Amino acid sequence: MTATARLSLNQITTKRWSLPEAVRGCVDAGIPAIGLWRDKVAETGVAEAAKLVRDAGLAVSTLCRGGFLTAPGPEGGQAALTENLRALEEAAQLGADTLVMVVGGLPDGSRDLPGARARVAELLGELAPHAGDFGVRLAIEPLHPMFCADRAVVSTLGQALDLAELFPAEQVGVVVDSYHVWWDPELAAQIARAGAGGRIASYQVCDWTLPLPSDALLGRGHVGDGHIDFRAMTDQVTVAGYTGWIEVEIFNERIWDTPGEQTLRTMVERHLAHVAAP
Amino acid sequence: MTATARLSLNQITTKRWSLPEAVRGCVDAGIPAIGLWRDKVAETGVAEAAKLVRDAGLAVSTLCRGGFLTAPGPEGGQAALTENLRALEEAAQLGADTLVMVVGGLPDGSRDLPGARARVAELLGELAPHAGDFGVRLAIEPLHPMFCADRAVVSTLGQALDLAELFPAEQVGVVVDSYHVWWDPELAAQIARAGAGGRIASYQVCDWTLPLPSDALLGRGHVGDGHIDFRAMTDQVTVAGYTGWIEVEIFNERIWDTPGEQTLRTMVERHLAHVAAP
Repeated sequence: MTATARLSLNQITTKRWSLPEAVRGCVDAGIPAIGLWRDKVAETGVAEAAKLVRDAGLAVSTLCRGGFLTAPGPEGGQAALTENLRALEEAAQLGADTLVMVVGGLPDGSRDLPGARARVAELLGELAPHAGDFGVRLAIEPLHPMFCADRAVVSTLGQALDLAELFPAEQVGVVVDSYHVWWDPELAAQIARAGAGGRIASYQVCDWTLPLPSDALLGRGHVGDGHIDFRAMTDQVTVAGYTGWIEVEIFNERIWDTPGEQTLRTMVERHLAHVAAP
Repeated sequence: MTATARLSLNQITTKRWSLPEAVRGCVDAGIPAIGLWRDKVAETGVAEAAKLVRDAGLAVSTLCRGGFLTAPGPEGGQAALTENLRALEEAAQLGADTLVMVVGGLPDGSRDLPGARARVAELLGELAPHAGDFGVRLAIEPLHPMFCADRAVVSTLGQALDLAELFPAEQVGVVVDSYHVWWDPELAAQIARAGAGGRIASYQVCDWTLPLPSDALLGRGHVGDGHIDFRAMTDQVTVAGYTGWIEVEIFNERIWDTPGEQTLRTMVERHLAHVAAP
């Protein structure tokens, strides 16, 4: 097995690239898998995107993303279900076995955090059997607590597992994304729990760098540029039994403005230096 | 008991005011307590500051702040101990029974988060008996996880309690600061645990507002301006048995640029509307 055998490019990392460009970039860089984004897939068309990826010999590590389950009222819930069923269908068509779920923040004007969290559990319950039918796993992604109000009321790996464990492991898992969970004092224990239950659906990596930019969403760095101990975290994920893709997902304007080929070279270098088994 | 009987102004909220101005502001606004900052106290002199506050009839809810325990090496540790002993002595002179502890982030260039956390426990062990001698309690403040790398490796109330419970309750407690802990799915349980153990040394309030500013430290809002349910959180703290000060601590350039009298009027209004028992 080569040192990049488990490496995947999450497409947001090369945001300026179209899907065909990202596929070609992966092939040229020797990266065997790609995490797709629905907006990029839509530009190309789902069937054409599936063919492009398949013909290039790439695996699809994840589809990003479903979720946003916290809109209030029957209409809010119905709209979320419809959209997520569409995402599940696309994932199946693309050959992705994992749909990343960013669950959504507080509804506008609401301060009812327990209510929003209960809503997530309720809609996951409606979606989970459909995920099973499609052969695609819903992967709940805990987001960093700084995104709790506006983006995801699921803030820790333990909380994501509490939700996932309400459903069969083949229907609902979790994402371990280094950026979102690295600070958690419970991280090692929760990674072990996730692994023991067969719940780790995706391992995503990027680094915590400072200062945070004015748009806090865009502060992520290349592996090795920040404060996260990737050797320790990767060991924990490995010991927990995870053998799947290691996906590099970076939101960062400066990296987006870098030529994609260069970003992929950096990605491979950092994978070898900080993540891949020595 | 009046509705503002437990209200305290943390001095950072009126950052442009000197200590004498803040003391006069509290008296004029009918706010019975103040949380002091060491830099402001130093401008006035400790003895003079103690006299000013005492003569005005104000209580001192906290002294901010000690901590920053993660500097490496024997010299780093010794410097931290010296500085914290000085802070404890000042607290005692000022009549403050609580020294707020911001424990410090990762040392420069370090990715060893477990190591930094162990270091905090080690130095707390050296400081705790001295705190007991001074009759001042070390109050460990978990900071929001977005400050984990640069400011405080203690990120949750549960983690702060794990540390505090290594020592007698009269020596080490915790701060419940709404801004830092509101997102935590374990919050209600950990507040109950803190109350049961007599560990709540301070309850600080300000709101989570968005977007985060370019300096993430300065994004806090007046109670009621953001996403936190203060009625629910205050009920939890109250049911847990806490009867102490409710201190308003806001880091926000716009609020700092507002005349102090106006800030205190807003503070009182919001306390009555969102925090004080109805």
